[in-house]
Amino acid sequence: MPLSSVATHADEQEIPYYQSVGNECALFDQAFQQRLPMLLKGPTGCGKTRFVSHMAARLGKPLFTVSCHDDLTAADLTGRYLLQGGETRWVDGPLTRAVREGGICYLDEVVEARKDVTVVLHPLTDDRRLLPLERTGELLEAPDDFMLVVSYNPGYQHILKSLKPSTRQRFVAMSFDFPPPAVERDIVARESGLEPDRCAALVNLAASLRAMKGQDLEEGVSTRLLVYCATLIGAGMPILEAARATLVEPLSDDADVQEGLMEAIQATFG
Amino acid sequence: MPLSSVATHADEQEIPYYQSVGNECALFDQAFQQRLPMLLKGPTGCGKTRFVSHMAARLGKPLFTVSCHDDLTAADLTGRYLLQGGETRWVDGPLTRAVREGGICYLDEVVEARKDVTVVLHPLTDDRRLLPLERTGELLEAPDDFMLVVSYNPGYQHILKSLKPSTRQRFVAMSFDFPPPAVERDIVARESGLEPDRCAALVNLAASLRAMKGQDLEEGVSTRLLVYCATLIGAGMPILEAARATLVEPLSDDADVQEGLMEAIQATFG
Amino acid sequence: MPLSSVATHADEQEIPYYQSVGNECALFDQAFQQRLPMLLKGPTGCGKTRFVSHMAARLGKPLFTVSCHDDLTAADLTGRYLLQGGETRWVDGPLTRAVREGGICYLDEVVEARKDVTVVLHPLTDDRRLLPLERTGELLEAPDDFMLVVSYNPGYQHILKSLKPSTRQRFVAMSFDFPPPAVERDIVARESGLEPDRCAALVNLAASLRAMKGQDLEEGVSTRLLVYCATLIGAGMPILEAARATLVEPLSDDADVQEGLMEAIQATFG
Amino acid sequence: MPLSSVATHADEQEIPYYQSVGNECALFDQAFQQRLPMLLKGPTGCGKTRFVSHMAARLGKPLFTVSCHDDLTAADLTGRYLLQGGETRWVDGPLTRAVREGGICYLDEVVEARKDVTVVLHPLTDDRRLLPLERTGELLEAPDDFMLVVSYNPGYQHILKSLKPSTRQRFVAMSFDFPPPAVERDIVARESGLEPDRCAALVNLAASLRAMKGQDLEEGVSTRLLVYCATLIGAGMPILEAARATLVEPLSDDADVQEGLMEAIQATFG
Amino acid sequence: MPLSSVATHADEQEIPYYQSVGNECALFDQAFQQRLPMLLKGPTGCGKTRFVSHMAARLGKPLFTVSCHDDLTAADLTGRYLLQGGETRWVDGPLTRAVREGGICYLDEVVEARKDVTVVLHPLTDDRRLLPLERTGELLEAPDDFMLVVSYNPGYQHILKSLKPSTRQRFVAMSFDFPPPAVERDIVARESGLEPDRCAALVNLAASLRAMKGQDLEEGVSTRLLVYCATLIGAGMPILEAARATLVEPLSDDADVQEGLMEAIQATFG
Amino acid sequence: MPLSSVATHADEQEIPYYQSVGNECALFDQAFQQRLPMLLKGPTGCGKTRFVSHMAARLGKPLFTVSCHDDLTAADLTGRYLLQGGETRWVDGPLTRAVREGGICYLDEVVEARKDVTVVLHPLTDDRRLLPLERTGELLEAPDDFMLVVSYNPGYQHILKSLKPSTRQRFVAMSFDFPPPAVERDIVARESGLEPDRCAALVNLAASLRAMKGQDLEEGVSTRLLVYCATLIGAGMPILEAARATLVEPLSDDADVQEGLMEAIQATFG
Repeated sequence: MPLSSVATHADEQEIPYYQSVGNECALFDQAFQQRLPMLLKGPTGCGKTRFVSHMAARLGKPLFTVSCHDDLTAADLTGRYLLQGGETRWVDGPLTRAVREGGICYLDEVVEARKDVTVVLHPLTDDRRLLPLERTGELLEAPDDFMLVVSYNPGYQHILKSLKPSTRQRFVAMSFDFPPPAVERDIVARESGLEPDRCAALVNLAASLRAMKGQDLEEGVSTRLLVYCATLIGAGMPILEAARATLVEPLSDDADVQEGLMEAIQATFG
Repeated sequence: MPLSSVATHADEQEIPYYQSVGNECALFDQAFQQRLPMLLKGPTGCGKTRFVSHMAARLGKPLFTVSCHDDLTAADLTGRYLLQGGETRWVDGPLTRAVREGGICYLDEVVEARKDVTVVLHPLTDDRRLLPLERTGELLEAPDDFMLVVSYNPGYQHILKSLKPSTRQRFVAMSFDFPPPAVERDIVARESGLEPDRCAALVNLAASLRAMKGQDLEEGVSTRLLVYCATLIGAGMPILEAARATLVEPLSDDADVQEGLMEAIQATFG
Repeated sequence: MPLSSVATHADEQEIPYYQSVGNECALFDQAFQQRLPMLLKGPTGCGKTRFVSHMAARLGKPLFTVSCHDDLTAADLTGRYLLQGGETRWVDGPLTRAVREGGICYLDEVVEARKDVTVVLHPLTDDRRLLPLERTGELLEAPDDFMLVVSYNPGYQHILKSLKPSTRQRFVAMSFDFPPPAVERDIVARESGLEPDRCAALVNLAASLRAMKGQDLEEGVSTRLLVYCATLIGAGMPILEAARATLVEPLSDDADVQEGLMEAIQATFG
Repeated sequence: MPLSSVATHADEQEIPYYQSVGNECALFDQAFQQRLPMLLKGPTGCGKTRFVSHMAARLGKPLFTVSCHDDLTAADLTGRYLLQGGETRWVDGPLTRAVREGGICYLDEVVEARKDVTVVLHPLTDDRRLLPLERTGELLEAPDDFMLVVSYNPGYQHILKSLKPSTRQRFVAMSFDFPPPAVERDIVARESGLEPDRCAALVNLAASLRAMKGQDLEEGVSTRLLVYCATLIGAGMPILEAARATLVEPLSDDADVQEGLMEAIQATFG
Repeated sequence: MPLSSVATHADEQEIPYYQSVGNECALFDQAFQQRLPMLLKGPTGCGKTRFVSHMAARLGKPLFTVSCHDDLTAADLTGRYLLQGGETRWVDGPLTRAVREGGICYLDEVVEARKDVTVVLHPLTDDRRLLPLERTGELLEAPDDFMLVVSYNPGYQHILKSLKPSTRQRFVAMSFDFPPPAVERDIVARESGLEPDRCAALVNLAASLRAMKGQDLEEGVSTRLLVYCATLIGAGMPILEAARATLVEPLSDDADVQEGLMEAIQATFG
Repeated sequence: MPLSSVATHADEQEIPYYQSVGNECALFDQAFQQRLPMLLKGPTGCGKTRFVSHMAARLGKPLFTVSCHDDLTAADLTGRYLLQGGETRWVDGPLTRAVREGGICYLDEVVEARKDVTVVLHPLTDDRRLLPLERTGELLEAPDDFMLVVSYNPGYQHILKSLKPSTRQRFVAMSFDFPPPAVERDIVARESGLEPDRCAALVNLAASLRAMKGQDLEEGVSTRLLVYCATLIGAGMPILEAARATLVEPLSDDADVQEGLMEAIQATFG
């Protein structure tokens, strides 16, 4: 079966590991049952995508993920006619597939997309739950098991890139943050294969690095980078070298900031 | 029958619930009878779209709704030739369909559309009521039961996005606001299934939240979000959790603003 | 006969009502006889379009009207090849049709059009009166009964949107303003069916509303809106309600400005 | 023979009237004989286009005129493949035709054209005199009787719209201004049919109107507008009305400026 | 075998010379083994591209290099349908080829690319390692021997051209600088064929020239330019002439800066 | 043989006259022998293009010249598929032809080109000397007798239009200026046919005119304009008239500047 964008089906995979830290699973469940669209907010690499994968698998629904960007248009979501061998063939976009087949369509960093996506989001997010396909002349009604999920990072929105209130107010919303230490330790250990104790030290380190955010750091270190660091350490790389490559260099190009980060690392591991 | 954009037909549906709060129904009726185009102004989620649906159903006319956006062009409204199997076929846009078949064409947030839409709005909104289709060589005369309705939110217009006086002065206009408390309570109760008394408390809360608009809040909480909140409460979610997910997180990303909103909520329900 | 843009033929219609208030008909007549192009200037809704329709009908010439906008290009005026059933077919634009068949081509708000329209206007507006069609390889010579008319509203021109002197100086020009009270009263009465006396009150009101222009009002109330107002009053709507919907709401979104307008209205009709 | 842009052939026409006022004809002649390209500078409507027509006819060479604009590209000058009936056919642009057939190619207001026109102007204006046609794979060598002439109005050049020195320094250049009074009188009389004495008064008036340029007037009144004025007077229109329509309204939209102009006119004719 | 972009295969070439100066080879090796993507940062011409070539050859993997630029889009990386003889044929882009065949895809100066490349980078750089091809309907899973490497020069990033944290934090990163003197001497000698002693003098000179960076010099002299200089000297060109042509003129157009550079050169070689 | 852009072949022409004034020929020779790309800097009309023609002919290599501009893209250099008679045919661009056939490709004013040209310049200017053609799937290796030469005028570069250091540092570079008086005299005499003595006076004049640059003159008078002036004088035109048309009008539109230039001319020839 051809797949557009990144689509995964529940029956083909195990449920991705996700450690809940609040009511997020219950809220997602309720939004799904009540057919309400959902907005996830939170910093880079804190687990939003993983959470959605987890919920999709738990609910036994296929997941269609789209990384939004400056040039993403409504047609990228709904589909287009493609020329092939002299014939034009309609190819559904990921949103259309989710509406046709049921499932969860996840638009990651939706504020990056072009403005014409609102034309497809609005009728899908009011009580009509409709997806009009102008090109094919179809008007699809979303099935009960269709759910739209969007996300963005409030940390670096700016004026030109934000959701209009008329769009935002169509979603049930929740904020994500990095998981609490014990949970993050388990996640890092599970993903990297490093022993939990050594991961705990990395998680402690992450807390002090994240505290440096806002001055010269645009974003705190993500859980993903902790996993990278633990992976390299587990593969035998010296701790300071692994930390530089995964917790310092990806965060900043500024020599002073890098030095500050390395000092914090050496204070922990030096 | 193929449908472009979101089109609904009166004979296929019951009349959507709408509680009138002034002379808006009479004015819409008169504009329809006198074949005058109509402009609706008002904040997000206060019921403009619902009002138009209601009037279309009451008048027994099909409704063609278009959510306008930055990239919407005249051709999106009038139609275009599409290549299919080597053949080109003309496909009417939603405005053309409304003119051909009679009915109400509703351009939601019309100020977002590209400027070339004026080329189709102007001849349709003077006494000629004509829709020229350059591509097909047709000149359509709007039937008596065709009506053009446009809307926008004066709350966040800016210089580059406004209707020119030469366009505005072609419409009979009216302003919308959130419904009065008793009416809003009934709407929320009807849509969510929650008991009216509990809805009344939500409506009271909305009034105090809306009073916070203008300082750090771009828009006040919409009736739609009250319905979401009541729906989640009715499904058994704790009130404060439901309120955070529907009345706080969708309104603001700012921690201080969120705290202010939660304090107002706790003062009511805590 | 296929029509592009909005084209009307003299033999298919009565002469639209137009009440002359100066030498405008004589000047238009002379410009037509001497084969000189004409530029009309004036505020929104003061009757420029109606004047051109009137003159075209009086002269017994077809009229091709184009509402110009930001994306209008020379090809929209001259024509283009269209693909139909595997065949490409040339379709004349409205300007080309006027040149081929004779008649008046009226470019409304010409300053809005893209700059490449000058390439077709210039040779048509000097003594050569030529329209080159690069795509078809034709060089059309305008017949004696071809006339080019353009208009714009000097009230909201800005730097990026103005006619270059090298273009302006190719036209005989005249300024329009709202008609004098007695004339405007007759126009409103004729178009709305309301008794002239009640229309006279509306026209008096318009004078005081127009005096408010410039401070917070971008444009004064147009004759068209007076006709709307009279129409709704004639249909039985209370005067203040009709005035709010046609003389206040279409002019401004500002609460203070709206209040000022309503006070003027109540001073007259309250 | 199909014509693109505006092309006229010497053998099909009489020599357009042009009254020389300096060495411009000799200089043009020499540039033509020495195969040097020519740049004409001067205000709107002072006779540059007429001068080029005159010289082309005197030299017995066809003339290819292009009014340049913001969207004019190299391909508009050189030609392009057009689809017709499933076949693609190359159609020469006006510059290519002039190079192939010999003759004068005149790019009016060349600074308005897009920057890629330099790619065709540069090899044509050095000693190689070559026109490469990338699309057809041809390299045309200009014949001895090919001449490139460009013009612009230094009066309203700005930074984004000027010829680069590397382009300017490829041309022999000369400045034009309005003709001296006796010459302009004869031109106006000849073109309008009005008696020379009455034209002389108009020419005197023009001098005082042109003296007002620079303060609030972007350009002085052109010879073309004097011809329009004389034409309307000759057709029986009252002088003040004719002057307002041709010497005031086309020059300015500003009420004060218009009044100043009318005062000057009444001082002459009142 | 057709190649898109610049692709080299390990079995067709010897291992390019690269002199390691730190743990960069070990870190790259580990990242490759652990299937982590890599980000290289560093100034112009310091050897990033050479390093990647070296590692690709050492690992025995094909290398697909793309020089990114302002107009590079996702489709340039993933592939597109091309029309050939009436048939459309899908042609893989360099990234797709690397994912299909295994190997290293190197995006040089990735910050220059358009924003839609994130849509392909994100799913390839999390634990899914997927490349969706919307157009062909394929979802490619990257093989274990696929590695994504990107680079940029932190020296002249600006606000509009930087990697978003959500992208940066997907990479293991390291910084490059010019090699230490002894290593750079060996590189220059090896590439140019000039004796190592004479190269050492050039490398010493480079240190003093690089110290001038930041004031009026945007970038210090690259190793590549040292190789150019040594090559010309080796071919018999006088040292000062070679130095001017390779170490002065390519760095600055400013006469004062050039003089300063020449003084430093003459102090060494004069 | 079809030619794209301006291509000349050594065996079809004599060696264009070029009078060397320094080591430029030797440096070019060495760069060619060592397969290094070359960057030429210098003012308008000082002889860069002539120099490249001269060297190409001396080396017996074909020359492919491209005048770069704002809209020039990589595809203009490498080639594209063209539709002809239903068949698509690949047509090499000038750069591709130079790489395939050997020869010198000269990109004049390369800073004007669009940024995607770097994608083809970079792999051609490092030790790989490769030209990837994504569209045809070819990877061309430049032959030993291929050389890339680019030029620009440092006099009017600005921020948006400059070569990035990562591009500049790939070239051996040299600066050009106007030739010394005796050399320039011979060039002017040779090109115009005017006696050397009279040319010497023009060259002296040029020196004083060039000294006026920088205040109100963007560029000094070029050698090409001196040739034009001498040509017109040789054809019998009075010196002051010839000088105005070739040394004053092409340099400035400003009346004061023109007067200053004419005074300098009259001081020499008056």
